[in-house]
Amino acid sequence: MKTLQVALGARSYPIYIGAGLLARHELYRPHLRGCQVMIVTNETVGPLYLESVQAALQSLDVRSSILPDGECYKTLDVWARIFDDLLAARFARDCTLIALGGGVIGDMAGFAAACYQRGIDFIQVPTTLLAQVDSSVGGKTGINHPAGKNMIGAFHQPRAVIVDTETLKTLPDRELSAGLAEVLKYGFIRDAGFLVWLESNMSRLLARDPEALSLAIERSCQIKAEIVAEDERESGNRALLNLGHTFGHAIETGLGYGAWLHGEAVAVGICLAAALSARLGWLTDAEVEHTRRLIAAAGLPTYLPQELTPERMLELMAVDKKVLGGQLRLVLLRHLGEAVITSTFGEDALYASLA
Amino acid sequence: MKTLQVALGARSYPIYIGAGLLARHELYRPHLRGCQVMIVTNETVGPLYLESVQAALQSLDVRSSILPDGECYKTLDVWARIFDDLLAARFARDCTLIALGGGVIGDMAGFAAACYQRGIDFIQVPTTLLAQVDSSVGGKTGINHPAGKNMIGAFHQPRAVIVDTETLKTLPDRELSAGLAEVLKYGFIRDAGFLVWLESNMSRLLARDPEALSLAIERSCQIKAEIVAEDERESGNRALLNLGHTFGHAIETGLGYGAWLHGEAVAVGICLAAALSARLGWLTDAEVEHTRRLIAAAGLPTYLPQELTPERMLELMAVDKKVLGGQLRLVLLRHLGEAVITSTFGEDALYASLA
Repeated sequence: MKTLQVALGARSYPIYIGAGLLARHELYRPHLRGCQVMIVTNETVGPLYLESVQAALQSLDVRSSILPDGECYKTLDVWARIFDDLLAARFARDCTLIALGGGVIGDMAGFAAACYQRGIDFIQVPTTLLAQVDSSVGGKTGINHPAGKNMIGAFHQPRAVIVDTETLKTLPDRELSAGLAEVLKYGFIRDAGFLVWLESNMSRLLARDPEALSLAIERSCQIKAEIVAEDERESGNRALLNLGHTFGHAIETGLGYGAWLHGEAVAVGICLAAALSARLGWLTDAEVEHTRRLIAAAGLPTYLPQELTPERMLELMAVDKKVLGGQLRLVLLRHLGEAVITSTFGEDALYASLA
Repeated sequence: MKTLQVALGARSYPIYIGAGLLARHELYRPHLRGCQVMIVTNETVGPLYLESVQAALQSLDVRSSILPDGECYKTLDVWARIFDDLLAARFARDCTLIALGGGVIGDMAGFAAACYQRGIDFIQVPTTLLAQVDSSVGGKTGINHPAGKNMIGAFHQPRAVIVDTETLKTLPDRELSAGLAEVLKYGFIRDAGFLVWLESNMSRLLARDPEALSLAIERSCQIKAEIVAEDERESGNRALLNLGHTFGHAIETGLGYGAWLHGEAVAVGICLAAALSARLGWLTDAEVEHTRRLIAAAGLPTYLPQELTPERMLELMAVDKKVLGGQLRLVLLRHLGEAVITSTFGEDALYASLA
């Protein structure tokens, strides 16, 4: 087992990474204040892992809240069911939520923890690669609004993140690839060496080689933990983690939540960011091609779906949270391995990149 | 104008108290980060004061979100309309919400500010006595769940509280009395001298004498600001402010939200707390009578409504947030002017106080 630390003063917490961790009770215990535990999971993950987690917590008052599976259910109404279950169980302020599932479950359970009785503890047990390397770390929680992704939410840090790499064995191929989009993102924004390593190990990762996956998760979580520790509330550099996300959120909102996986939308977003960076003279055409090749090698799309015209994309991007005072800010690439936040790109260049 | 300060480090903010303040643009301006402002108000308060606030903010991009009036609308669905309005206006992270209304509007707008794009600024402009002396100060925000009051919410401090005492001129008598319940509360928990002053000035207060009302608001806000500065997140003494509230919330939930005003339920709650305190030997029967007389003098009820049996009250109280690990904790009175938080009272004594 590997342990990383997210350094946030009184809100610091460990990330445990290893095989078989979700069944190990000693990883949960130090992070539980009371004896009431609500496991929030979904109809796909529940049948696979709920029993193991329950077994690890036996002797405590453990309940479960089982939600439908999919980004299209990351809504206010489905979120509200968690409160129904917490109140039906009469759970008090010192209870703990456990988010057992992918990014959607982590975001919804985390946001419910932020709001139940004005804030209770929660533990992330991510079961998808995407959640393990990205959404479970850093305390961003929330739900979608028909007008935009994650528009309603809170910063609420978990007490611990328990990454059980065994869960990747049951992950559908498409979800594995989607997770690799976020793994690649870390290389693009901050670590050219990691990008090289990912390129040479892509077939091992796709073949689910446990050692390669563990290393990729560790390095990703390390970078994420560093950036979050520097800027918890995204007043500065944390926004670098949004490489590909402004484009990606527009794709997700435009196609309807759940049509594409988040990681797939981000993958295309990274390609679009690279293309726009080339128009600003920061990347060569060869580097843009290299970016697309790397993304494609992970089994991911590299171009916008036909139904999303440049006009529609611009409209959707205008609602993004990264728009501050009417000014669209994007994360672009100075080099492969170095991202910057900027709003100094021409509307024309942006349009051309989307066309 | 009187200015008090809520001392919370980086989250400190002023409370301005005076006549005609809601039209004074210079009180808003220092607290606005961007130029987008959404005024959240209701169908009763809007027609009275919305125009004045809009006029004070002219030259900015000012919109309004007008909700139905009443505690029974403090729900998830009505709360969600604020996000619809914010997103229809495409408001960015640096926009500001203004809560113009009573406690329900302040709680809902504040909670929307806590969650919109994971947290934006807001300003409280309370227009009821209850909101001016209590709910607008201290950062408690939230909405009701059918199973319990304020069960879903957040701690989110406003940037400023603007108390315009002129708004009390249009306040219905019943709401004035409800506000006085919270004013009396401060005397009961921490300031016997204030209690004496309130007793001798009750007829002036009920006659809406501006000077008496201003003094009552100032002293109340002072005590609230002190307690909040000591314990922002209610891990200790802030719970003293809940005198009468565990009983009161049970009454509100039991009768259906809106049947009684919050202040009316708290008034009965204070009487019940006094009665239980007498059973513990802390108050004399004469002091319990004195408490009831004071509450009644403010035009408030002093006994439970008939339909709420002791059994039903105990059931409703068991869901209260102050229940920690199955143990019901109550705020009781050591003396008139000194409250304590305790769970060492017999179930029998509690039952008898409710009977």
